[in-house]
Amino acid sequence: MSDRSHLEREIREQPAALRAALERSMPAVDRITRELRARGPLEQVIIAARGTSDNAARYAQYLIGARLGIPVALAAPSLTTMYQAPAVPHGARALVMAISQSGQSPDVVGVLESARAAGVPTLAITNDVTSPLAAAADAVLDLGVGIERSVAATKTYTASLAVVAAFVARLGEDDTAAAALDAAPELVERAIELAFDGVAALDAHHGAAHVVVVGRGFNYATALEIALKLRELNGAVAEGFSPPDLMHGPIAAVAAGTPALVVAPPGRVRASVLEAGRALRDRGAACIHVDDSLDADLRLPADVAEWLSPLVAVVPGQVLALRWAQLGGHAVDAPPGLTKVTETY
Amino acid sequence: MSDRSHLEREIREQPAALRAALERSMPAVDRITRELRARGPLEQVIIAARGTSDNAARYAQYLIGARLGIPVALAAPSLTTMYQAPAVPHGARALVMAISQSGQSPDVVGVLESARAAGVPTLAITNDVTSPLAAAADAVLDLGVGIERSVAATKTYTASLAVVAAFVARLGEDDTAAAALDAAPELVERAIELAFDGVAALDAHHGAAHVVVVGRGFNYATALEIALKLRELNGAVAEGFSPPDLMHGPIAAVAAGTPALVVAPPGRVRASVLEAGRALRDRGAACIHVDDSLDADLRLPADVAEWLSPLVAVVPGQVLALRWAQLGGHAVDAPPGLTKVTETY
Repeated sequence: MSDRSHLEREIREQPAALRAALERSMPAVDRITRELRARGPLEQVIIAARGTSDNAARYAQYLIGARLGIPVALAAPSLTTMYQAPAVPHGARALVMAISQSGQSPDVVGVLESARAAGVPTLAITNDVTSPLAAAADAVLDLGVGIERSVAATKTYTASLAVVAAFVARLGEDDTAAAALDAAPELVERAIELAFDGVAALDAHHGAAHVVVVGRGFNYATALEIALKLRELNGAVAEGFSPPDLMHGPIAAVAAGTPALVVAPPGRVRASVLEAGRALRDRGAACIHVDDSLDADLRLPADVAEWLSPLVAVVPGQVLALRWAQLGGHAVDAPPGLTKVTETY
Repeated sequence: MSDRSHLEREIREQPAALRAALERSMPAVDRITRELRARGPLEQVIIAARGTSDNAARYAQYLIGARLGIPVALAAPSLTTMYQAPAVPHGARALVMAISQSGQSPDVVGVLESARAAGVPTLAITNDVTSPLAAAADAVLDLGVGIERSVAATKTYTASLAVVAAFVARLGEDDTAAAALDAAPELVERAIELAFDGVAALDAHHGAAHVVVVGRGFNYATALEIALKLRELNGAVAEGFSPPDLMHGPIAAVAAGTPALVVAPPGRVRASVLEAGRALRDRGAACIHVDDSLDADLRLPADVAEWLSPLVAVVPGQVLALRWAQLGGHAVDAPPGLTKVTETY
């Protein structure tokens, strides 16, 4: 155990971290959703985040949009910090949410402060309840997964997804969803086993300079997050796309031999993602299929609800990024040029 | 003239195209903004777009946010088409805008149709008034710049920015802004001259596999659009970033020697963009400065208002993408694998 990297330990810790996050946040989730429901139907949600947390925000956008029917806007923090533009529509029954594991990003804190000054309820999701972000928010959901030592975020990402999902399940008073979520840590455990079993078969691709990851709907977030891990840990230019975005131009820059992860767990968007995979293959890309079929290159556990699938679908990407970083001799826990806390204004 | 590509002709046509677009759209801009003002203060704007038009939408987000103080959300069209989620908050005094030169994208049309069904006013900005998008909208702003023959959009992009700017100036009853906008075609003309004068000095970089473009605020759109042109025309993996997004991970994948365009016209965000430029230089990137200083690598005309600068700042990127495509022997007007109309659902 002791020669494992922090990153590998944190990837493997995720089932326990998710259990801790769900348990730790539950009382606050109950209280906050009760208060929000008492104010009348929520008309919209605005989310501010950067980096990995921005990918968790993308998941929240789809989850809140598709399951609660509430439109979600992702804030452009620069508009608030650089141009003093309001983040929240005047008079709207809105909630402003910020996601940041460190809770330190001044521009994300700035969006919360501006919303609070306008009398809009604010919610922080963070792994540090003593952070400036937590101090700026009306309510805090504590990830409580312990310190994350690797610069590349893994357990704080999946814990953010889980806490967002718990919040949405409670706000929608959806007990079936809450029960399904309780089973998520076990599914993540299975996803970790499958990923470590399957990853070595992809070693031939480890030095690729360009990697493409395609996902859609709930798993657009997964595509973006897997790409970010490959980038942070390998210095690869890895990019996440939804199929329409890929087809509107970027596919022109996919050369023959480029590894292309096709993230297609079961669900409404699967056909469209597989179609993008075929277009990539026609350009000569080396498709790596991430789904629950027996012939997947990186296999996901079966029988996971579409809205929960991002919790498991990101895991093979984390494991792949770790493996390729090890093969490439990269500094796994502290990639050059990155810091755990990035203060941007 | 006759041996010039459509692309080069369309780049050079932009001053005339902008004049045409501003003139053609003015009566509709007047009428629509009058009707909107009569409904009471607009509380928010939602914009749907894909590809190049999505970059125009990003400009609109900053312009409407910073100059009118109205929050803008960029729609995730998949949420509407795949998950039937509403694009517009219930009960909001909103406007839904769609931008598409061809007006053909079914998912963008879908967002407008869903908004219209919910009784929310809709506006289409398109170069084809007979398109499905125009048919689905309550009101249409016609770019009217004539057929764009090159697959890579140039004149329809800058015309979209100009029409958006005219709309915002009228909605805000800002005659100074409207007058400044009338001078934009001349500034673009100057930008075209400067770009064709300066571009050959950068020939050494033309085969780069990876290119980074940094811009912020109003010119975040510019960074994204220049990157898209380099990608479409050269098959380079070119990426646009805002400084905070770059620092939150992606800088790890910038290798020594990577050309990095630093788009920093005068304005509130210039210092932050130049700082990102220094961080890129510290990693060994080959910085290409795009600004109005005498020692810029690609010089912009001086004395352009920050909010108008995206109209001129994109031009050197268009010219660079054209030049590098010519040097690389690429099919300039019809890059392989791309089509002028991309139908995505």
